[in-house]
Amino acid sequence: MSAATKTFTIEGRFNMHRGGHLISPQLAYETWGELNTDKSNAVLIFSGLSPSAHAASCSEDPSAGWWEDMIGSGLPIDTEKYFVICANSLGSCFGSAGPASINPETKEPYRLDFPVLTLDDIADSAHELVKHLGIAQLHTVIGCSMGGMSGLAYCVRHPVATRALISVSAATRSLPFAIAVRSLQREMIIRDPDWKEGNYTADKPPLAGQRLARKLGMITYRSAAEWDQRFGRERATDSDSPGNKFKIDFSVESYLQNHAEKFSGGFDANCYLYLSRASDLFDFAEHGGSLKAAFSRLKLERAMVIGVTTDILFPLHQQRELADGLASVCEDTQLVELDCIRGHDSFLVEMDAFRPVVCEFFGSC
Amino acid sequence: MSAATKTFTIEGRFNMHRGGHLISPQLAYETWGELNTDKSNAVLIFSGLSPSAHAASCSEDPSAGWWEDMIGSGLPIDTEKYFVICANSLGSCFGSAGPASINPETKEPYRLDFPVLTLDDIADSAHELVKHLGIAQLHTVIGCSMGGMSGLAYCVRHPVATRALISVSAATRSLPFAIAVRSLQREMIIRDPDWKEGNYTADKPPLAGQRLARKLGMITYRSAAEWDQRFGRERATDSDSPGNKFKIDFSVESYLQNHAEKFSGGFDANCYLYLSRASDLFDFAEHGGSLKAAFSRLKLERAMVIGVTTDILFPLHQQRELADGLASVCEDTQLVELDCIRGHDSFLVEMDAFRPVVCEFFGSC
Repeated sequence: MSAATKTFTIEGRFNMHRGGHLISPQLAYETWGELNTDKSNAVLIFSGLSPSAHAASCSEDPSAGWWEDMIGSGLPIDTEKYFVICANSLGSCFGSAGPASINPETKEPYRLDFPVLTLDDIADSAHELVKHLGIAQLHTVIGCSMGGMSGLAYCVRHPVATRALISVSAATRSLPFAIAVRSLQREMIIRDPDWKEGNYTADKPPLAGQRLARKLGMITYRSAAEWDQRFGRERATDSDSPGNKFKIDFSVESYLQNHAEKFSGGFDANCYLYLSRASDLFDFAEHGGSLKAAFSRLKLERAMVIGVTTDILFPLHQQRELADGLASVCEDTQLVELDCIRGHDSFLVEMDAFRPVVCEFFGSC
Repeated sequence: MSAATKTFTIEGRFNMHRGGHLISPQLAYETWGELNTDKSNAVLIFSGLSPSAHAASCSEDPSAGWWEDMIGSGLPIDTEKYFVICANSLGSCFGSAGPASINPETKEPYRLDFPVLTLDDIADSAHELVKHLGIAQLHTVIGCSMGGMSGLAYCVRHPVATRALISVSAATRSLPFAIAVRSLQREMIIRDPDWKEGNYTADKPPLAGQRLARKLGMITYRSAAEWDQRFGRERATDSDSPGNKFKIDFSVESYLQNHAEKFSGGFDANCYLYLSRASDLFDFAEHGGSLKAAFSRLKLERAMVIGVTTDILFPLHQQRELADGLASVCEDTQLVELDCIRGHDSFLVEMDAFRPVVCEFFGSC
């Protein structure tokens, strides 16, 4: 956890949506800026599957956050004007209760005893945090990727708790292509003998499976067009195992290997499995029985949907469906289709494209 | 091997393009129809990575072949008019020499002692077969997927050995997205403890890794749009392991599981690794130093490039590049872009779209 991370405990029994409960679960979170006197300037950010609450640097922790170029003084989400909150998602492993945290009822890590996780649980736990901070209504909820779906869950379950929503590269639900990819990622981990039915030890996590899963992640987070430009058929200068006939030959293979090694050690495998499944399970239409019914529950004054042309996980047609639904109940809805080459990950790396859009929404520029 | 399969031995030392050699390698092949007296009606088919030589049924083997609806009496490749040849690719495991066959020098299976395989080797071995059948010049070479690249290798290495070429869902080379996918598929197999550095036994092949690889294959062979139509968020009625929290929930997961189980037992893992790598390594531009130089070596009278809008492995822009290159040296070049929903696999399953195109090429309808 970052030195800037605060914690909040949801006291008592926290019932989970698909059954089971947690006792006094903790959420790790960070904040930037100051809450104004009428408490009307709070912005809640839901992250994608893998980040911590450290969305941006601050004096206690000057290391770059996962949305460093977006949040801060003079930046699109301007911390001179807004009080910004980002929690580590319930079920994750950076300070919030999840499969890797201690179950107070057994004094052991939950592991697979953690109840089935849904994005509704992530939304509700964040709502408890917002109430704890004394905020009755947020200025805006922003969610990226999985966090965009959590943001939708937040808005539909707590309709008056926010005035606006920004959905970034998300959708009303996952389609079978995305489900298939995530299912395969989970299977790679589960089939790693080191997974041990979830009972791996800290010094021997299922790293091989996690790395494979991360590589498949990268294949779907980026775009074929980006890699054509970036790698083409360039050969790698390094090789992981020179004696192996099926060693790394191409730069793109070396790139995936480096990314996978960097990521996998830092994320708990069971948490990954739970969050990945939660993304599959989310279906906005379940809030009321149909998409129409779900949208009709919203009480948004403003909405913005940002999507990317090369995103294969949450493709443009899903962004349009989401924007159409929001527009049907919220006149001030804007759809922004960005022609970025870096696929689903563009919101993390194509900041020159994303900054002006978010800037305009917040009137920061 | 099918009862219809014949074998041919390339006598003596067969040198491989990236070094090493084979001693008297065998090719398994099938033929349909009769060679005419001036030997001008022969059509050679190069298959994708996984099929055998059994492209169509015949009296000796009435079981359906992998291109059953395309080859036969009264079908687009009409066996009343043409003499059709299909070999099991060198390096494969259905009767041709490959990692799973016996090395005559050691009397043991080659396994990883098989030399690095390239599509040039596949093309050259098929050319030996064609010469053995007494054919100086083919009417047409047809190649599908990996076979399309083998077909290009055939035409550039033996320019007068065919009058025409049909490339189906192939390209001049693999781009980094396709290389990344195949690299990950290989890694899934190599990381399976049952692979044992290629020394697995017949009763314990690396099935778990092979199934994972096949699932990733299916994800890239089909299209997201097809799965939206076909599965949406439908739930599976079966489950592979009911006690498992991360069991199969969605129909698309069950579909992948069924496909993977059907495929993986039938294909040798080492052969798969060699053929997969050969697909990565192929680059038409290496025949002369540039694409332009490679195309200028061709002596085709007719060419046709067939591609599919939803193919993510060999996308349309690659079909166009190939057709442009062919057109620059062969006036009678046709590009056919088919708007099929089933992605790369369309040539195997969208026969109503493919049949008329091939029919027209051969004047069969």
